[in-house]
Formats: sequence, structure tokens, C-alpha cells
Amino acid sequence: MAKINESILNLDNDYLFSEIAEKTEKFEKENPDKKVIKLGIGDVSLPLVNSVIEAMHNAVDEMSKKETFKGYGKVQGENSLIEKILEYEYSNIGIDFSKKEIFIASGTKGDLAGIIELLSVDNKVGITDPVYPAYVDANKLLGRKEIVFLEAKEENDFKPELPKEHVDVIYLCSPNNPTGVALNKDELKKWVDYAKENNSIILYDSVYEVFISDENIPHSIYEIEGAKDVAIEFRSFSKLAGFTGVRCSFAVVPKQVKVSTKSGEIVDLNTVWRKRQNVKFGAAPYITQKAAEAVYTEKGQKEIKDNINYYKENAIYIKQELEALGFKVYGGKHSPYIWLKVPNGMKSWEFFDKLLNEAYVVGTPGVGFGKCGEGFFRLTAFSSKEDTIEAIERIKKAFKI
Amino acid sequence: MAKINESILNLDNDYLFSEIAEKTEKFEKENPDKKVIKLGIGDVSLPLVNSVIEAMHNAVDEMSKKETFKGYGKVQGENSLIEKILEYEYSNIGIDFSKKEIFIASGTKGDLAGIIELLSVDNKVGITDPVYPAYVDANKLLGRKEIVFLEAKEENDFKPELPKEHVDVIYLCSPNNPTGVALNKDELKKWVDYAKENNSIILYDSVYEVFISDENIPHSIYEIEGAKDVAIEFRSFSKLAGFTGVRCSFAVVPKQVKVSTKSGEIVDLNTVWRKRQNVKFGAAPYITQKAAEAVYTEKGQKEIKDNINYYKENAIYIKQELEALGFKVYGGKHSPYIWLKVPNGMKSWEFFDKLLNEAYVVGTPGVGFGKCGEGFFRLTAFSSKEDTIEAIERIKKAFKI
Repeated sequence: MAKINESILNLDNDYLFSEIAEKTEKFEKENPDKKVIKLGIGDVSLPLVNSVIEAMHNAVDEMSKKETFKGYGKVQGENSLIEKILEYEYSNIGIDFSKKEIFIASGTKGDLAGIIELLSVDNKVGITDPVYPAYVDANKLLGRKEIVFLEAKEENDFKPELPKEHVDVIYLCSPNNPTGVALNKDELKKWVDYAKENNSIILYDSVYEVFISDENIPHSIYEIEGAKDVAIEFRSFSKLAGFTGVRCSFAVVPKQVKVSTKSGEIVDLNTVWRKRQNVKFGAAPYITQKAAEAVYTEKGQKEIKDNINYYKENAIYIKQELEALGFKVYGGKHSPYIWLKVPNGMKSWEFFDKLLNEAYVVGTPGVGFGKCGEGFFRLTAFSSKEDTIEAIERIKKAFKI
Repeated sequence: MAKINESILNLDNDYLFSEIAEKTEKFEKENPDKKVIKLGIGDVSLPLVNSVIEAMHNAVDEMSKKETFKGYGKVQGENSLIEKILEYEYSNIGIDFSKKEIFIASGTKGDLAGIIELLSVDNKVGITDPVYPAYVDANKLLGRKEIVFLEAKEENDFKPELPKEHVDVIYLCSPNNPTGVALNKDELKKWVDYAKENNSIILYDSVYEVFISDENIPHSIYEIEGAKDVAIEFRSFSKLAGFTGVRCSFAVVPKQVKVSTKSGEIVDLNTVWRKRQNVKFGAAPYITQKAAEAVYTEKGQKEIKDNINYYKENAIYIKQELEALGFKVYGGKHSPYIWLKVPNGMKSWEFFDKLLNEAYVVGTPGVGFGKCGEGFFRLTAFSSKEDTIEAIERIKKAFKI
């Protein structure tokens, strides 16, 4: 009988969100009169902005006529979108890349999992804890031998510690999911310096950069000198423009990022990623790419900023109200996530149950993001303003710390 | 320095289509007065049908309103699309699956490469030759140790031979890319029987099934008794409904298909594929899935059949004209591909050059699909009728065999 790749049997990623869904469903069934408010999954609630909607209608019309119909696209992405990304995301802040260094895809999850297929399973990988569970699972799926967890703890304001040993690959997420904590330039520079000294590669997940509210917090890792030699950056339109159901993302793979063969031959990752994409990825849909392009217009920029501000106001509101209640709270300023310390020494899941049963509010237990998340809890600012206010009112009644 | 996964260095998939593109570009530059007709890549030329266009506009409108906006979808796909697939593709021909056995994705290339991540690199894999190059490349990328090529040769009408040794996994593509040859029920039954006897898994690529023009040719491998125990089927809307730029596909992973661990524990692939998708794939876009759903309406079915008939007429025309010219031709009846024997003992690439230089027509050298493709050449029926007729007229002038 065909043998399975046994690495996959170690995956337990289903657990967190399916457990949340199950508990919520049970509660709703038993309490049909209670309206549950979901501040759990990081999904947006505002519809797509007008510029994007118009661009999608136009692209659909193009697909309806022989003269303008588009079949297979370039695996790397449409030139017109890549040019906009280069301009708006990079050259506007003084960072220059060539078109060959940007790769359009259908979501950062796939890219983050894909890039590590290129790296030997013998590499030692450092992953911050707590963290988006798919990082760890993608490594388990590949049979990664050594994962070093880089702990982010309350005593360091949830800023992860540099590895105490040599690691070859480092996952960094800033602003962070789940903690909402963002690294400033000095802090991020330490990581770039570490990577340069150790010949490591940083996989930089900055899909929440649009929430940054302070000039000293970099939006791109390439704002740090030398990062082009060591870092790959992952960005997404999911949070930037509410594309969670549209699916568009990009990765920056600078030409300078190098890896070596066992025999010491130097290879550039950009070339190798291109080959990988040709084998495993079939280009992002044309309509999706035109939708993303519309974000990079004067009107589009204004519209998405209005939406982001709506969520930011929710985030600040949740943060302030919870702090007023006596909760210790992280995130919420540069992030749609509020990371709160569970009161009275409760465990993450105990708090989940209490919040669901007494306030009919669903959040995400911190321990689901890793060992260091135990005793913490994530709420998101992506709901409507009304639901956010209602949820806080209920929490106020249920928790008087 | 981080080490590369050295398997990827073996990839040579870029070669075929980039070599074609380069040669074509050079010719066009040197001969600006000649209009080159491209019958190379298997991409469609007709625009999307009305039902699909309407569904996409409606879905875009849904995304524009708070009440109907869709964020993250289910990784497995929208229930409404899965139900239509179950009905139109399977229960209408007497095959029953549950919703949990259908997985919507963004293209068969990714699924075919993904499914083998689940299978141990120690499995021996059988791949027909000639074949779509991405099968081989996806295996090379994974570091597959043993690939057995199952030769399809002229003397067997390009029907591949059963493995002479035990293989754990078999790739089959019918109607075949590149040869256009389709297996009938008896022929396909031999493969299912082999797989059952050998506890092998068949990865059945039937993305061209809509071109089948004969009742005795199965559209699905599950028309063969016992196939549910051994086969995974891959289908795509790319050729079915001209979705090459829209990106939608599905895989059928029956609950009965099993693999084992080294220690003999039996695992079902359906569960494992679900886990893999959760880690690496982020659901197909909502708009795309609504577009695919529109194919499964009375109007949609009629419209896509009209388009397919347009291509089929091109295929039959090419086949008949080339045969009249004295070419030996395979495919073209159940397939958009015409596989012709290169005349006068020429090599595939020599014929490519001659066709480009003397008829200004671009096709695909058979040797690009594997060793057994040497001396053969693929033309596609996906161009416009006018270009197809013009190409044949030019070939007639250039080749008088």
C-alpha cells in the first residue's frame, strides 16, 4: 500500500478553530434567545470599497468580450499590479525593487507555507511563540526536524527574544498576530543584524502593516538597512483592503537573498521561488489582480483608509474600555487585535467559556497560538461598531475586576 | 547559511515554454510583417459565457454590500458549488459522493502537486510518458526517489503500458495531454484492476473530459467499478468553461482511498488532504466559485457546450486536413490536442523551427513532454476558427508530404 508522508500526522491545526466553532454552536443551540457576538476570527466585516467593486465589474466585462478576454496569466502576476505595488508600497518610502522581485499570489498562507518548501528540512527554524498556527503546521507538514520557539512574554511586552542559538530561518510577524504588538525600527534592526551575522533568512509577515499608527514603526522590513540581503516580506490585501474572500497577496523576494547547497554552492532564492511557482501555482485570477490594482489609486487609497480607520476606532475603543475595567491589554494600537491578560489567574479556555456563557461573546484563547499564549486571550476589532460596543457592554457586566 | 532543498535544483520545467517563447519572439522581431499564429499553449480564446458573466457581476455586487459581503470562505469550498458538482458531474451518471469528498481549489496544477506532498517520498511513482511536465517536476521538487516512466508509444496508439513492476502511485491523464488519446472503459478498467491488486493510488487527471465524443469513453474514473477505493480525480473549469484566467478546479478524494504508515496503520487520504488544505490553502475566491456554479444551470450548460463544440470543430478540422496532407495524427476527437507524427524522420524541435519559419505557426515540440514524445508535435484547437483555417492553409503550402 502507498505510504503516507508521516509528518502530516503531527498536524493539530484543526483543533483551535474547530473547538471554538463547536463550543459556540452548542451554546447557540442551547440559548436560542441570546445573540452571540463573534470577536474571534480575524475576518473583516465591511464590504469591498467602491473603487475595487468598479474595477471588478470592469474586469468581468473584459472577460466577456473576445477582444479583451484574458486566459492564463503570468504566474508571477500582472505587470500593471506589480508596478503599482513597487510604487505605492516601496518607492514611495524610498525602497527600490525590480519587477522580478514581486510575486503576486492568492494569499499569504500559501506563500508562507510554499517558501519553506525551498529550504532544506535540516535547517533550524525559529518561530515566535505565540504565533499564527499555520507557520508551525507548515513546518510539521514538511518534516522540519528542529523548530526553536522564540518566546514572547509579558515581561518583555510580548516582544520576542532573539535566538540564543544559531537558527537558519526566522519567522517574524509585526504587527503581530495574535498579540498586536509591533516592533519599532530599533527592535527590528536587532533581528536584521542577527540574520546578517548568522546568515539566516527572515520570513517577515507584515500583513497587518496598514494598522500601524506611529512613524517609528516600520511598515516594511526593508526600511531597515541590510534587510534586502536577508529578508523575504509577505503582504496581503486581505486586511489592507478587506480581500479575505477575494484572495490576493504578494511576496517580495529580493535578488540578494541567498541560500547554499550542502556543497557550498550559492543559489539565489528569487530564481528558485520562480521555479517553484511555475510548478505548483497557476497565477492569481485576472479579476482579483485588477481589484487589487484599484486599491492603488487616489480614490482607492482614501476608501481603504476610511475602512481601516473604522476598525482602528473599534480597536482603540476595546483597548480603552478593557483597560478602564482593569484588564491588562496589549495590541490594539497598531493592530486589529487586542491581546488581554485573562484575569484572576484563569486559563485561556476558562476565560473563553466564561465570556461565552456570561457575555455571549466569542474570542480566541491565547494558548491556541502557543505555549506562551496561555493565560491570554485575543479579541478582534473587525466587527461592526455596534456589535463591538454591545460586546464591551456585556463584558463590563460580566467582569468587574 | 540556510541550506536549500536541493531537490528543486533538478527542475527544468522552465525550459520548454520559455524556449518556445524565445524562439517565437526572435522570429517576430526579425519578421515584423509576418503574423504568427500560436497553436502552442493550451489556452482558450473564447470569452466567458453569459451565465458566468452574470453570476460574476452578481457576486461582485454581493461583495459591495454589508449584508451580503463574504469574507473568509470554507477552505473546502462553498456548499452550493459542491452540491452542483455532485449533481451534474456525478449523480447524473449514477455516481454518489458525499459533500466531504469534493474539494474546490484554484487550479489542478496546485492540487496535483499538493496531493503528492501527502505521500511518502519512498513511494514509487509511475508517470506516463509523454506527459504534462508539471507532474514530473512536482515529484522532483519533493525529492521523489523513484519515478517509473510508463511509456506510451506509437505502436500502442499512445496508450500507456501498465507498469511491469509494482508502483505505489500512478498518474493517468485521459483524454491525454499532450497526445489527445482517451482511454475507453475496458482500457481504464485495467488500470483500476492493477491499482486494486497492487494497493496503488491512481491520480486521475480528467480536465479534458468535456471533449469526449463517444459513449464508451468514461468522463470519470469512477465509472469503473472499484475506482472509489483507489482513485483521486482532478477536474477543472479551465477547459470546461474557459476559466484559464478565472482559476477554479476541484478534486474528488473518496473516503475509501487509504494509505498506510510505515508501521502499518491505515489512514484515509480524505482526512489528511483536508488537514493539508487547512495549512496551505486559503479557499477559492467567492466570486470565482459563484462563476463556476453558474456553469451548472440549463443556460450555462448550453452555453459552455456551444463553446466546446467550437473548439471541437477546430480539432476535427485540423485532424482531417493534416491527415489529408499525409500526416499521421492522434487525438483531436476527444481532445483539443492534435498529436502529429513529425514527417521525414525530423526531430520535434526541427519541426518546430520549420513550422515557425515556413508557416509562421507555433506549436509544441513533443519531446518537451518526455522522451516518448520525440518525433511528435502538439497543436491545439483553442484558437479562433479563422486563425485555425489560416494556419492549416499555411501548413499545406509548407508541407507537401
